[in-house]
Amino acid sequence: MGERKATHITWHEGAVTREDRERSLGQKGVTVWMTGLSASGKSTIAVALEQVLLSRGKQAYRLDGDNVRFGLNKNLGFSAEDRAENIRRIGEVAKLFADAGVITVASFISPYRRDRGLVRKLHDESDLPFLEVYVDCPIEEAEKRDPKGLYKKARAGELKGFTGIDDPYEAPEEPELHLPTRQYSVAESVSAIVEMLETRGILRAPPTRGDSR
Amino acid sequence: MGERKATHITWHEGAVTREDRERSLGQKGVTVWMTGLSASGKSTIAVALEQVLLSRGKQAYRLDGDNVRFGLNKNLGFSAEDRAENIRRIGEVAKLFADAGVITVASFISPYRRDRGLVRKLHDESDLPFLEVYVDCPIEEAEKRDPKGLYKKARAGELKGFTGIDDPYEAPEEPELHLPTRQYSVAESVSAIVEMLETRGILRAPPTRGDSR
Repeated sequence: MGERKATHITWHEGAVTREDRERSLGQKGVTVWMTGLSASGKSTIAVALEQVLLSRGKQAYRLDGDNVRFGLNKNLGFSAEDRAENIRRIGEVAKLFADAGVITVASFISPYRRDRGLVRKLHDESDLPFLEVYVDCPIEEAEKRDPKGLYKKARAGELKGFTGIDDPYEAPEEPELHLPTRQYSVAESVSAIVEMLETRGILRAPPTRGDSR
Repeated sequence: MGERKATHITWHEGAVTREDRERSLGQKGVTVWMTGLSASGKSTIAVALEQVLLSRGKQAYRLDGDNVRFGLNKNLGFSAEDRAENIRRIGEVAKLFADAGVITVASFISPYRRDRGLVRKLHDESDLPFLEVYVDCPIEEAEKRDPKGLYKKARAGELKGFTGIDDPYEAPEEPELHLPTRQYSVAESVSAIVEMLETRGILRAPPTRGDSR
């Protein structure tokens, strides 16, 4: 029992706050929500963005189909109800990451305005920034790229309810950032996002309590 | 268009890895899973633990009923099926946080061995550490504390399926850490968890690639 020395353990009443975490990390928590067609370039931009932020000592984390569809949301299908629940859960998880102080980069087609609006509302209610980035690639261009052959399958009727083919994509009306991929290179897209984060004060710690600078 | 300067943006092929994130944070991602009866002291210990870790410059985040039950899991009730899904989703989210490099402190009654075992398996499959901490408070003691009056309600039959009263608590058989709260103060409990994290190398960054130290 003599080994349980705890004299170096001290703490005070009350939980660590979001601001405490943000000051420790030197940044503010945020959700950067990238929406756009399949093959529009969302993931490519998100991957590059994470690297650039890490190289500046910032903590970012990507949420995408790879780490969500086969994990948290593996019990969801593609019915209208399940699609809405898919985005809702992702929105809730993004909110937790943002609350932890992380620059959270969510990259999902998320075709419906209503679903994205609900995620924005979740963040608003918790006073967490939600920045919608519209990765705007014309369907002809996305279909030409078709790296996974999904558009081809959708055209052949092998995939039903495919966004842009037989299911709508509802473009954001007032995204915080619009990235027309025909005019913006990946580097320019990443640069535009980083600039948005800088302008909004995300890349620096919040001021100390009572600090009026 | 001339404002979209991107010359300072450079990146390489391939996504940022977990190890990259861990090196940047100077710690390893982990899930510390605290299980025990209602009013056993899980939250108190978790809150103090987060403070102590933050004071050492480590990034921790707590997942608990407060930020999960009314968010991600608000569409779940208390049926056997929903309870299992509750823990499954929390386990998946804890896994994402651990993958992000965060010291994730999950604090839930999580009474069933099977559910906790599934969360452990999820982590094992992704080669992420899962450390089960049994906050072992005798039911008589927990019932005496009863800060929210829940035991009282359960005894009166106003709450059904309450763990320890009319629903079982299955104690961990081989937890990574056993905290008998009758013998351990909160400070001693936190100290024991920090020591476990130190011993397991969680509080330092992973070695650089090719570094054979």
